[in-house]
Amino acid sequence: MEVAVAEDPLYQRIAQHYRGAIRSGLMPAGERMPSVRSLQRLHQVSLSTALQACRRLEDEGLLEARPRSGYFVRSLRRAGMQPASEPDLRRAPDPAQYVGIHDRVSDFVARSESRPAVADFGATYAAGSLYPADALRAAALRALRRQPELLVQPAPAAGDLALRTAIARRALDGGMQLTPDDITITHGCIEALNVALRAVAQPGDVIAVESPTYYGLLQVLESLGLRALEIPCSPHTGLSIEALELAFDTHPGIKAVVASPDYNNPLGCVMPDADKARLVALCERRQVPLIEDDTYGALGGSDVPLRALKAWDATGNVIRCVSLRKTIAPGLRLGWVSGGRWQARIHMLKFAQSRANEALPQLTMAEFMASSAYDRHLQRLRRQVKQQRERIAEVIDASFPAGTRLSVPAGGMLLWVELPPGVQAHPLFEAALMRGIRVVPGTLFSNTSRFERFVRFSCGHPVTREAEQALRDLGAMAAAQV
Amino acid sequence: MEVAVAEDPLYQRIAQHYRGAIRSGLMPAGERMPSVRSLQRLHQVSLSTALQACRRLEDEGLLEARPRSGYFVRSLRRAGMQPASEPDLRRAPDPAQYVGIHDRVSDFVARSESRPAVADFGATYAAGSLYPADALRAAALRALRRQPELLVQPAPAAGDLALRTAIARRALDGGMQLTPDDITITHGCIEALNVALRAVAQPGDVIAVESPTYYGLLQVLESLGLRALEIPCSPHTGLSIEALELAFDTHPGIKAVVASPDYNNPLGCVMPDADKARLVALCERRQVPLIEDDTYGALGGSDVPLRALKAWDATGNVIRCVSLRKTIAPGLRLGWVSGGRWQARIHMLKFAQSRANEALPQLTMAEFMASSAYDRHLQRLRRQVKQQRERIAEVIDASFPAGTRLSVPAGGMLLWVELPPGVQAHPLFEAALMRGIRVVPGTLFSNTSRFERFVRFSCGHPVTREAEQALRDLGAMAAAQV
Ligand SMILES: Cc1ncc(COP(=O)(O)O)c(C=O)c1O
Ligand SMILES: Cc1ncc(COP(=O)(O)O)c(C=O)c1O
Repeated sequence: MEVAVAEDPLYQRIAQHYRGAIRSGLMPAGERMPSVRSLQRLHQVSLSTALQACRRLEDEGLLEARPRSGYFVRSLRRAGMQPASEPDLRRAPDPAQYVGIHDRVSDFVARSESRPAVADFGATYAAGSLYPADALRAAALRALRRQPELLVQPAPAAGDLALRTAIARRALDGGMQLTPDDITITHGCIEALNVALRAVAQPGDVIAVESPTYYGLLQVLESLGLRALEIPCSPHTGLSIEALELAFDTHPGIKAVVASPDYNNPLGCVMPDADKARLVALCERRQVPLIEDDTYGALGGSDVPLRALKAWDATGNVIRCVSLRKTIAPGLRLGWVSGGRWQARIHMLKFAQSRANEALPQLTMAEFMASSAYDRHLQRLRRQVKQQRERIAEVIDASFPAGTRLSVPAGGMLLWVELPPGVQAHPLFEAALMRGIRVVPGTLFSNTSRFERFVRFSCGHPVTREAEQALRDLGAMAAAQV
Repeated sequence: MEVAVAEDPLYQRIAQHYRGAIRSGLMPAGERMPSVRSLQRLHQVSLSTALQACRRLEDEGLLEARPRSGYFVRSLRRAGMQPASEPDLRRAPDPAQYVGIHDRVSDFVARSESRPAVADFGATYAAGSLYPADALRAAALRALRRQPELLVQPAPAAGDLALRTAIARRALDGGMQLTPDDITITHGCIEALNVALRAVAQPGDVIAVESPTYYGLLQVLESLGLRALEIPCSPHTGLSIEALELAFDTHPGIKAVVASPDYNNPLGCVMPDADKARLVALCERRQVPLIEDDTYGALGGSDVPLRALKAWDATGNVIRCVSLRKTIAPGLRLGWVSGGRWQARIHMLKFAQSRANEALPQLTMAEFMASSAYDRHLQRLRRQVKQQRERIAEVIDASFPAGTRLSVPAGGMLLWVELPPGVQAHPLFEAALMRGIRVVPGTLFSNTSRFERFVRFSCGHPVTREAEQALRDLGAMAAAQV
């Protein structure tokens, strides 16, 4: 049962209007946005439409809300920092088999873990203290008390109903109408991606992915014998719909598109709603399944949830894969998949691959997600990660060599930093590692060499004095390369 | 690091000697076996060799130990019951793609669950009361108390070291010398089988399997696009090594052999040590990886552990896949794989497929497996399941139509019953279901129609009056078909 939620083109038109003005510098940082009431009058729209437009621009990192004063064009006090540069969207994509990404990733992981971290900008989890350890533990203890035989009884084959119900309820906020039957619980988003890809593709097939993309996805493709076709992304709006359309024309055999539209890894950006709608429509028109990876979407800049690609899906062509780990509980291996018209096949593949998940983590998560503690947790996590993200951006701004470029997204865990020409990420990664500073070099996120000058910073940990000093040291190391 | 343990051909020769005598009726049921001391004198062997021979025959279900009186040829008071018949070992195997086994299994599961069970001879778990619910729960509670942030911290990528250590220690008893690094923790045996098969085969490849075999394996093969080549099995000694050798000659492309030598599903029999050694040597000689599925091995008839195929593996050609669910905790999705020379690839595939397992179930299982409670639990479970198995066999013997054949294995959870000519398992399954009696028809265990007259009984549940009545009803339903 999937019902597409009608979209409101009005708020998008308004958002587009001001987006252009802010990007061009017409509305400079710090300038006050017209009040919601003025927008209402100016554009002849309802209050909620005007508010929606502001919130969208807030999510995109262009506006910030100041308590009791309204919206302002966002300033990050970036002295001379430019946003990361746009890719060439018309270049022909190059399909690759990714033989070797496993070795590269294993080598990276082994090297990263070879020394204790003084400052960890590598892990895409927040610090343990930012997660609801107590609430989850209490829920787990309650489940064990209520059902003394829980650990010795097989779990229901379809996944826990309470958890699937809680997920379906929460998905409403993202614009989706799912029933518990539309949802299969998985061992994290990675298992969801595995079964989604296996449901729609065979070894040898070509899959269109974002470039750069999460290296875990490249590993999954390699391990399944699939070939990745890298589609250029804007560091501000994500996957380029034009470039994807071009790829469809030049590579008629594309079997699926995988996109992570919300605070994607590694770019950290959000795809505008208009692009989301176009992406869903394009894949539908081309009859190519669209696999959505939502791992960080709940870490939005505002409390208004982002709309999932799945919200525009009227035909079951979108397969939604979600992680609950980065946002709720890194210690529980829980994710879910809603497979649209492939749901039955996906469910069967999950069963054949690892059977149903255990009951205890599902009961624990179900209780938490159904409670208001979930909302409070996300608010707090968002606020905290936002502070960390902005502080890290500030220090990078102040201490990295001239020519370093960086956009600061309004949400998510990640910062994607472009180093100046002449500075290479891999030697920086190695040098940093010697001092116990963990970052991830851009080379991991693509099979091409396009991201040799990029570094991904994860902002999950509180920015201590040591962390600030580590960032300044990194800046000096980068400068030494110039 | 794998070291093959030298085998003792002496005890096998003695076992073979008496096995022949018992099978031929030369030594009838109830007859006393020569005492261990006499065996020692008669065959000029050590006491331990003589004892080993008796225990092997006990495991095979041919002898039983009576306290303080020695070993006796086992009687099951089977009035006229013959053992299940031997297959034609020289028939040419027929490769099949198993298109449709998923549907058949889904249909079976859905139908089985459509009514509440009055008597469940379907589930391959024992009753919850036979598992160590309290000890496991206490271990889980301790882990949650000791590590309050357990649920919000990512688990170690390699799997919990304490669990891998406990597993390696326990594996010593099965004749294996494994280090924790040889072991990858998985989501049950099914995930272990998935990654093992993916490590050695590509879609389209042919895999030799037992016939009949666990339908879950047929599903895994189908979902991976692999083709199953069914190798005949004796209902007493499992996979026929002769038939496998023939298959290697006629099907040079076989990419792997999957065998479940100990209390296999559905036959319930144990492969004799001599056959195990021959199987390992044959696969090694033919350079075909041998995948061992050990799901019920710990449910032996005696306390002497069976030797794993892996114990004969001197070259890393055996991939051992183990379930911890049926024997310890059906509510924890834990299993493991030791991949021999494919270990690195298997570990990588597991990581790409579902990442490392959660910490809490691993800590729980590690504590339990490292304690003596584990031994006590297995002893109790074995004893209880044995009683149930023998009682069920007795009632079947007394109430099924003449011509019904059945062997009663000394261990494991299962009974494989051959119905007389003219009686079909599927209609029996359907009729039984209408009365809330669950059994599994033989048709599920093969893509051929060879097992239409077979029914698998699982003996995990205490044999209540209702269960006995259900068996008698089943017998009457079968008789009505004659
Ligand atoms: C974009 C993206 N997708 C999927 C995953 C995997 O998620 P999970 O840990 O839930 O399997 C990650 C984890 O880093 C990720 O960044
Ligand atoms: C022979 C056999 N192998 C594997 C499995 C699956 O084991 P697990 O539940 O540990 O995945 C089963 C379960 O029924 C089985 O009978």
